[in-house]
Amino acid sequence: MNAVVFDREPVTITAYDWVPGFAQGLVRDLRLRWALEEAGLPYEVELVAQGTQTQAYNMSRQPFGQIPTLTAGPGTMFESGACVWRIAEASEALLPGDKAGRDQCLSWMFAALNTVEPPLSMMAMLFFFEREPQHFGIADAGAVATIRPGARNGAVLRLKQFADVLGKRQHLVADRFTVADLIMVAVLRIADSLDLLDESPDLRRYVSLHTARPAFRRALDGQLAPFRENAIKYETTG
Amino acid sequence: MNAVVFDREPVTITAYDWVPGFAQGLVRDLRLRWALEEAGLPYEVELVAQGTQTQAYNMSRQPFGQIPTLTAGPGTMFESGACVWRIAEASEALLPGDKAGRDQCLSWMFAALNTVEPPLSMMAMLFFFEREPQHFGIADAGAVATIRPGARNGAVLRLKQFADVLGKRQHLVADRFTVADLIMVAVLRIADSLDLLDESPDLRRYVSLHTARPAFRRALDGQLAPFRENAIKYETTG
Ligand SMILES: N[C@@H](CCC(=O)N[C@@H](CS)C(=O)NCC(=O)O)C(=O)O
Ligand SMILES: N[C@@H](CCC(=O)N[C@@H](CS)C(=O)NCC(=O)O)C(=O)O
Repeated sequence: MNAVVFDREPVTITAYDWVPGFAQGLVRDLRLRWALEEAGLPYEVELVAQGTQTQAYNMSRQPFGQIPTLTAGPGTMFESGACVWRIAEASEALLPGDKAGRDQCLSWMFAALNTVEPPLSMMAMLFFFEREPQHFGIADAGAVATIRPGARNGAVLRLKQFADVLGKRQHLVADRFTVADLIMVAVLRIADSLDLLDESPDLRRYVSLHTARPAFRRALDGQLAPFRENAIKYETTG
Repeated sequence: MNAVVFDREPVTITAYDWVPGFAQGLVRDLRLRWALEEAGLPYEVELVAQGTQTQAYNMSRQPFGQIPTLTAGPGTMFESGACVWRIAEASEALLPGDKAGRDQCLSWMFAALNTVEPPLSMMAMLFFFEREPQHFGIADAGAVATIRPGARNGAVLRLKQFADVLGKRQHLVADRFTVADLIMVAVLRIADSLDLLDESPDLRRYVSLHTARPAFRRALDGQLAPFRENAIKYETTG
């Protein structure tokens, strides 16, 4: 089951050469880097110049003008969830060998990306709306503050439900680190950046535990390095 | 690759015995029903009584107190995306046989659920906020109308980007109906219910084409039948 190898190594992923401070360390190529580091698979990074992501060369491989992508043979995959699952399938480091454990990981992958992340994305969106209301055609920035508590409750509910299931455990599936933990921790880090983990000691502990993994540290360093190098280029002109 | 069969047949899915009118035909068990109908896999439906979904018996199999779930052996899967992908893997009806086509389907699965659906969920959330502001702790329902245009733009952008890629094609992958079309059409039906497809003739055509499939019609009838039977129970008391 875990033997869906790649046609070509090293694989290539896309990432940005720079993003604004609030997004640094949260850009979604991190998920692929982390998975590849855990799997011990060699990879190269093609940096997309900030501001060029909706140009034809990037749209042809990522239909929504985003990063990341994964090229590992003739075709290019997009969507961090799809790429991470594909990497997991190519390695025993991220998936249990048995069918039941693998199916549980698949459920948690989609739970992280289709149930936990969307209310966090809504909170992030409100943050953008408030930061640059005119850019989003919002006349009264105060309106955002009015609906934020309702949106916050939606996010907090999902975090609480997840915390209830996790409890004091370190891992979601099969008592070992899997792709389920990787993707859930990646999503919970968004909640943390929105100050939504403050009342969840179990989630904090779970995130800290896994972000201390050497593979995560290497992935994070890899994402941040070009931002430092290119800061001058973007931060003086912006 | 397409031979990850189920341990037990028929499989069992969960669905509601009733939902309010605006949700009828959109409840996410439809995705599983449709996939199972396309795959020709026999299934049984366990109806969850509306209002009991967060009770222990359902939380133990669906950590967020929702439906659907899929039981096909010793374990139960949750998340419509995970269940639909698992069904696709168990049948040739929904996945191309080659690795590249399968990887493209995986990318589109996550694109539908993690890129296209979230801004639609935000629009749906705003709809709920406006319908029952006090329930969500929102003092001024007018605030929702103020931010809706910004939220709408986010949803419309994703729909337009998707329409640009789809163009006049009937299928996303391998010139045949796959799980990628199934899940994308399921998500686009949410956009349609929010009146967001009015300016997208290509998306309308794509949705109409695939919802005319006999397997879709059977799935939809299957979801709706208990709502009619149970209308009296819920609609008179509610
Ligand atoms: N659902 C997509 C989301 C990808 C995404 O949001 N990418 C962001 C960076 S984290 C992006 O490239 N946004 C476009 C931009 O920043 O202009 C995935 O998980 O891959
Ligand atoms: N991401 C989940 C979402 C499931 C979901 O939203 N289920 C809804 C029905 S469509 C539900 O059960 N909501 C709880 C409720 O209605 O009380 C999935 O795709 O399975």
